[in-house]
Amino acid sequence: MTPERIARIRQTLDQRQPDLRVVADQIHKPRNISALIRTCDAFAVANLHAVWNRDGYRAFRKTTGGSYRWVTTHTHRTTGEAIGALRDSGHRIVTAHLSERAVDYRDLDYTRPIAIVMGSELEGAGQDAIDQADDHVVVPMMGMVESLNVSSACAIILAEAQRQRLEAGLFDHPRLPDDEYRSLFFRWSQP
Amino acid sequence: MTPERIARIRQTLDQRQPDLRVVADQIHKPRNISALIRTCDAFAVANLHAVWNRDGYRAFRKTTGGSYRWVTTHTHRTTGEAIGALRDSGHRIVTAHLSERAVDYRDLDYTRPIAIVMGSELEGAGQDAIDQADDHVVVPMMGMVESLNVSSACAIILAEAQRQRLEAGLFDHPRLPDDEYRSLFFRWSQP
Ligand SMILES: C[S@@+](CC[C@H](N)C(=O)[O-])C[C@H]1O[C@@H](n2cnc3c(N)ncnc32)[C@H](O)[C@@H]1O
Ligand SMILES: C[S@@+](CC[C@H](N)C(=O)[O-])C[C@H]1O[C@@H](n2cnc3c(N)ncnc32)[C@H](O)[C@@H]1O
Repeated sequence: MTPERIARIRQTLDQRQPDLRVVADQIHKPRNISALIRTCDAFAVANLHAVWNRDGYRAFRKTTGGSYRWVTTHTHRTTGEAIGALRDSGHRIVTAHLSERAVDYRDLDYTRPIAIVMGSELEGAGQDAIDQADDHVVVPMMGMVESLNVSSACAIILAEAQRQRLEAGLFDHPRLPDDEYRSLFFRWSQP
Repeated sequence: MTPERIARIRQTLDQRQPDLRVVADQIHKPRNISALIRTCDAFAVANLHAVWNRDGYRAFRKTTGGSYRWVTTHTHRTTGEAIGALRDSGHRIVTAHLSERAVDYRDLDYTRPIAIVMGSELEGAGQDAIDQADDHVVVPMMGMVESLNVSSACAIILAEAQRQRLEAGLFDHPRLPDDEYRSLFFRWSQP
C-alpha cells in the first residue's frame, strides 16, 4: 500500500455521505447494478440498498468487478423492509418515478438525509416504492423514448445532490460514523 | 398514427437542438452506443456523430432497437474528420476528458453551438479528440474509481446543457432547419 493509495482512500472516506443513499428496487440486471455502484462511488454514496432475491444477488456479486468494493451493499427481502429501515434511520424516501406528483429533480433538497429509490428496467419502481415514498422525483424528458436508463437517471440525480451538498459544505469535514470509517479504512487498505 | 402520436412527434421535433451534438469517439460496445443514443433522445440532441470502423457500425445497428430511430447517426472514419466538419459548421468542440486543462462541466456555456466528444470505455478519448478540443470538460469525481461509465458521464453533461438551454429559452421555439424538421417528421410518422 503506497502512501498515495492511503491518501486516496482517506480522501474518499472523508467525503463519503452516510445520509445520501441509493435503493435499487428489484433491479436484476447485473450490469445495471454495477453501473449504479460505480456512480454511487463517484458521488460519495457509501451505501447501496438492494431489494432482490438470493439468485439475483449471487449473479451480481460475480460481475461487479472492481467497484463493488467501494460501496457497501445491504440486501433487503422486500422494498417495504428497506424503506422502513431507512425511514427509521431518519431518511426521506424519494422514488425516481414519473407520476402526477413527481417533482423536477432540481427542485428537491438533497442536503437532508435522503434515500433515492431507483426502479427496474422493465417494470420501473414497484408499488411499495411508489406508495411509500415521501416524494417522487423525475428528470424531465424531451424525447420520444419514455425513460432513461436507470444508471443514467441515477447519475443525473446524484450529480445534482453533489452540487447541493458541495454548496452546503457537506464535503468539508468527514461525516461517516467513526466505527464505519475505521472498518472501511481497514477493509479498503487490505491488498 | 393517432393524433396523440403525431402531437408527441411534433413536440419532440419542436424541442430538438441542431447545435447540441454528441460525438462518440471510437466507442465500440453496442450497449454503450445504445445508452448514448437513448440519452441524446431524452435531452433533445438530434445528431450523434460516431467515429468507428464498418464492423463496429454493423454490430451496433443490430442492437439499438427502438431509440436508434429518434437520433440521426452520422458516421465518420476518423475523429479528425468528425471534429473538422463540426467545427466548420460553427460548433465549439468540447472533449469529456480528465486533464490539467479540464473545466468543471457546470462552468461551461452550453447555449452556444457545441459538440461534446465522449471517449471509449477502455482507452478514453483518443489523441485527436484530446489535442483538437477547444475545451476539456470533467464531472468531478469523489470516489475510488477513476471514471464514470461513458453514458452516465454523457447524461450528466447533457442534463446541465438542458438546464442552461431551458434558462436561455432555447426550447421555446422550433430550432431545426425546415428541411431537417420535415424529413424527420416524415420518417418518424411512418408506421
Ligand atoms: C428504464 S426506467 C423504467 C421504465 C418503466 N417502463 C416504467 O414505466 O417505469 C428504470 C428506472 O430508471 C429511473 N428513471 C428512468 N428515467 C427516469 C426519469 N426521466 N426520471 C426519473 N427516474 C427515471 C426510474 O427509477 C425507473 O424506474
Ligand atoms: C470509462 S471512461 C474512460 C476511462 C479511460 N480509462 C481513461 O483513462 O480515459 C469513458 C469516457 O467517459 C467519459 N467520462 C467518464 N468519466 C468522466 C468524468 N468524470 N468526466 C468527464 N468525462 C468522463 C470520458 O469521455 C471518457 O473517455
